[in-house]
Amino acid sequence: MIDQEQLRDCYVNTPSKIVMLVVDGLGGLAHPDTGLSELETAHLPNLDAMAQESACGLTTPVMPGVAPGSGPGHLALFGYDPLKHIIGRGALEALGIETPLNPGDVAARGNFCLVDGDGLLVDRRAGRIPTEFSAPLCERLDRIQVPGVELNVYPVQDYRFVLRLRGEGLSERITETDPQVVGVAPLAVEALEPQAEKTSAMVNDFLVQAKQLMAEEDRANMVMLRGFAQLPNLPPMGEVYRLNPAGIAAYPMYRGLATVSGMRVISTGKTFADEVETLHQYYKDHDFFFIHYKPADAAGEDGDFDAKVKRLEELDPLIPEIRRLNPDVLLVAGDHATPAIMASHSWHPVPFMLHSKLTRGEGIKTFDERACSQGSVGSILATQVMLLAMSHAGKLTKFGP
Amino acid sequence: MIDQEQLRDCYVNTPSKIVMLVVDGLGGLAHPDTGLSELETAHLPNLDAMAQESACGLTTPVMPGVAPGSGPGHLALFGYDPLKHIIGRGALEALGIETPLNPGDVAARGNFCLVDGDGLLVDRRAGRIPTEFSAPLCERLDRIQVPGVELNVYPVQDYRFVLRLRGEGLSERITETDPQVVGVAPLAVEALEPQAEKTSAMVNDFLVQAKQLMAEEDRANMVMLRGFAQLPNLPPMGEVYRLNPAGIAAYPMYRGLATVSGMRVISTGKTFADEVETLHQYYKDHDFFFIHYKPADAAGEDGDFDAKVKRLEELDPLIPEIRRLNPDVLLVAGDHATPAIMASHSWHPVPFMLHSKLTRGEGIKTFDERACSQGSVGSILATQVMLLAMSHAGKLTKFGP
Repeated sequence: MIDQEQLRDCYVNTPSKIVMLVVDGLGGLAHPDTGLSELETAHLPNLDAMAQESACGLTTPVMPGVAPGSGPGHLALFGYDPLKHIIGRGALEALGIETPLNPGDVAARGNFCLVDGDGLLVDRRAGRIPTEFSAPLCERLDRIQVPGVELNVYPVQDYRFVLRLRGEGLSERITETDPQVVGVAPLAVEALEPQAEKTSAMVNDFLVQAKQLMAEEDRANMVMLRGFAQLPNLPPMGEVYRLNPAGIAAYPMYRGLATVSGMRVISTGKTFADEVETLHQYYKDHDFFFIHYKPADAAGEDGDFDAKVKRLEELDPLIPEIRRLNPDVLLVAGDHATPAIMASHSWHPVPFMLHSKLTRGEGIKTFDERACSQGSVGSILATQVMLLAMSHAGKLTKFGP
Repeated sequence: MIDQEQLRDCYVNTPSKIVMLVVDGLGGLAHPDTGLSELETAHLPNLDAMAQESACGLTTPVMPGVAPGSGPGHLALFGYDPLKHIIGRGALEALGIETPLNPGDVAARGNFCLVDGDGLLVDRRAGRIPTEFSAPLCERLDRIQVPGVELNVYPVQDYRFVLRLRGEGLSERITETDPQVVGVAPLAVEALEPQAEKTSAMVNDFLVQAKQLMAEEDRANMVMLRGFAQLPNLPPMGEVYRLNPAGIAAYPMYRGLATVSGMRVISTGKTFADEVETLHQYYKDHDFFFIHYKPADAAGEDGDFDAKVKRLEELDPLIPEIRRLNPDVLLVAGDHATPAIMASHSWHPVPFMLHSKLTRGEGIKTFDERACSQGSVGSILATQVMLLAMSHAGKLTKFGP
């Protein structure tokens, strides 16, 4: 793991290259009719062929029984203990829309709501007003001035936005304003510790102004703020592992996670094919690449078993395109399982395979949950994946004399 | 684990129900003649049928190679790190005879011994005098008065008893009085830290009076005290997991372990069938049940392979009685292995299975050490069992955004 101070001297910089393909929501569970998981159902000749020449295993994202969000799921694969390095909700939302966050900035998830003449909540989501309605409201909120802090409001989608505070001595240790029920007034924020009093007062000033500014609106006339968070202070991957790492992801949130981990984020297109093309283009410039495949997770979250199978089958033909680069280490992992039958992230161990010149196959025939459970890697924590990658790449030398 | 502060916000209260069946000493080792373990030898149609529909694995009670006592074995299954939350010997002995212990009380294991005219030990166990002889002695010791503390003496069995001290500012940090050899006098207790001086003086006062009181006895004329201990301060299961937990156990020690973990202990009869009846009776009142099966461990401790097989076969027909309640999560686990060929607790990983609507079977045909090692749960720490149970019950939500 990245915090393993004792290993710091074992990392060496070499020309060898590592490609980490993260298939979002990779793992699944058996379909009740067939007894086969999404991976077992899908026709995946290229992933299966790779498994036959790889070291296979299962990864546990956080600990047994704990389903992670995207933040902890990815940080773990990059080697950060997800129970120690926590990205707060506001910060992750900001990363998701690529709002630049500096160390010390505080970000919050905001949403528009509707209050009555007495200021009591009527609709906590303002009828889920569409973006075309909320974006102009965000522009107006963005112009609010509070002394001593720079405030910015960025539209996300529908009734949701991000509030970013930038300035000296800000704190994330303030309470949320959503009372979770209607019929009462949105709460004022409160400081959770004395050092947060200043931030708390600034946010309350913003809220008072926001209310005045929107008083005449009839669909959305107030805002609520949740998940105040600063960026965690992560030791940069490149520094710890002595790598020059790059991230390639079509979705902004994963670019954000790459950024906070200290990777260079390379611009790419909207599809995974674009990402692979970007990988080819920049292959000579970096020795570590994180490349992200999103569609499998989305289908799993929708509870659509067949769609998830299809999304995996669409990934498969691009595997040879990556292998054509002949990286010293190519690993395929998942940030967590997203079983279609659960329509959500889950805690189940996730299939994993790593290919290098040291892996000659171990009798595993297919890339899926059951087959990988029999692999030589066994069942490991996701935080240990980078150690395997580094070792197979000759970048992690002997520990201890 | 119960100490994982970061997970606290992920636990949610739902109506779903969890039943945790702990089969004491569940795991075993192969009989030298057959190569089959107790579980592999036993005819267990109901446990096997459940395994075919469960997620299976192995649990390690403390860490590989460490055989636990009943205390750590159970605490781990309830989610408490057994290396951190330690129940001292005196407190566990008191729990074992259901001596009420309040926070702050100090309990010690006592035993009668025989000294000669010079006060030197002749027999450290007083010829293992039977209970009918020791119980009246306990009654006399119970009447000893020491200023500033309430002292009580409770018979356990044969030459053993429990001494309980109740009062303000007591400490468990005092030394034992058994010199471990004969021919010398029993030791006085000594304070291990300044705050324990008062308790130490009180116990020495008790010992002087006990010696005078029994001076005329010829079979047992002195006592020795060991394992001074207070109850550990465990975060209550119900509070951490947002559960309303109950414990059902025919044996007092396991009721005691349920109590210190914050469960409500429900009175039951002397057999496991009584326990299952109690489970049915109170099923609507709680969302978590710990139910304990003792006989397998006792047979294993006796080194009686065939008896352990039989005790497991006697458990099996009651499994459908539990399943008839259709709990959202039913899990069968062991606090540790008690291989008959070792006639003792052991460190070996213990078979484990968990049934929920998400488990559709994974090709495991039987419930035993070998089959469970191939299950999807893999090899986990016993402290992680509660996380799996909570997740399968929908009571542990996603960690991190």
